[in-house]
Amino acid sequence: MAVKLYELCGADQKRVFSPYAWRSRMALAHKGITPERIPVRFIEKDKIAFSNQKLVPVLVDGETVVTDSWAIASHLASAYTKGPALFGSPAALGTARFVNDWANTSVNAALFSLILMDVFNCLDPANQAYFRETREKRFGMTLEQFSADREKKLLAFRAALAPARATLAAQPYLAGDQPAYADYILFGNFMWAKCTSPFKLLEQDDPVHAWRDRLLNRFDGMAAKAVGFPV
Amino acid sequence: MAVKLYELCGADQKRVFSPYAWRSRMALAHKGITPERIPVRFIEKDKIAFSNQKLVPVLVDGETVVTDSWAIASHLASAYTKGPALFGSPAALGTARFVNDWANTSVNAALFSLILMDVFNCLDPANQAYFRETREKRFGMTLEQFSADREKKLLAFRAALAPARATLAAQPYLAGDQPAYADYILFGNFMWAKCTSPFKLLEQDDPVHAWRDRLLNRFDGMAAKAVGFPV
Repeated sequence: MAVKLYELCGADQKRVFSPYAWRSRMALAHKGITPERIPVRFIEKDKIAFSNQKLVPVLVDGETVVTDSWAIASHLASAYTKGPALFGSPAALGTARFVNDWANTSVNAALFSLILMDVFNCLDPANQAYFRETREKRFGMTLEQFSADREKKLLAFRAALAPARATLAAQPYLAGDQPAYADYILFGNFMWAKCTSPFKLLEQDDPVHAWRDRLLNRFDGMAAKAVGFPV
Repeated sequence: MAVKLYELCGADQKRVFSPYAWRSRMALAHKGITPERIPVRFIEKDKIAFSNQKLVPVLVDGETVVTDSWAIASHLASAYTKGPALFGSPAALGTARFVNDWANTSVNAALFSLILMDVFNCLDPANQAYFRETREKRFGMTLEQFSADREKKLLAFRAALAPARATLAAQPYLAGDQPAYADYILFGNFMWAKCTSPFKLLEQDDPVHAWRDRLLNRFDGMAAKAVGFPV
């Protein structure tokens, strides 16, 4: 039965930019699955009302509905046991969850402060109004205030990547010699940026840069070809 | 053949407090190995001159000399394949390296600023002089300056633990249902503190606190019984 992935998109429905949906998309590609992709704008939550919650990504796999990118990865790992593993062992799944929590707590916000206005500019006016209202409430400040001092915040973002940089100086992927879900987690954050923002995040000689390139080119350049900006 | 572990100690040779040596000690216990332990003070580097470098821990396993805690864990994983795995799969080893780099880049310095003067106070005068000179040179400030504002730095340290806290709210160990080397990495940092400092690092209801307790009590309370302070 068909696999469907509901993903967040911009004014251009082909501009798919949720970091979490990108984690799921890479996980599906890792398993050799090409999903039917359904773009969802912020104010089109009715499209995913069937999932009884309001966040993308949503995976529909036959009769099974899975929400939350971590749960989607866990579902794929247990439902599709053939082919390369998304985790590889219980301990690998455990520590991948740590990478997930690290990306969510230590990278997401630092990156959002760099690309927020670019994300805003990818939206149509009605979605811009929704985005401004909800994010300004969440941050307790205007979008412009949250994204001020971008050059200074860039240094904080690069500093937040220190553990990934050290690991990727020693091995090609966060999961070791071959990429696995631990990589797609952080890579999803970078795709959020690539699909919305022309801002240069990484120095050319940063091991994270070379790693990102490897993943951009994976799966016949699936991520490199996505609607977005050069990195 | 006997396994020997050279560990950093204080004025009291039984006070063994290197975070890295604690990682190795837990890894050895995980493999059911009770090493002969040789305490080394900062200015007793001649004891490990045979290793051709100046840092503890040093593991001597028969004819094999291994330095650096990560290399020691890798050695134990490949040399002792029986019993519970320290990693569990190539991907688990890869992501454990990420945890290692995270602890080294994001936790170590934040913790050192909290316990520095307590570490200093565990040393005899000759080692104190060495410690003061080398650390003041490294930090570019006096020990007292580096450890000022401890209550404020405590909040930064607890914030740095955010990814571990999120993971440990969802599963009992960083490696999943059972502890593995990913856990011993961060736990080594906590043992550095416990063995030198009475300062309370964690709130009682922090999931990291409960996790630390579980590891303190592991291996018949090996870590809980170490010369140090209550946590």
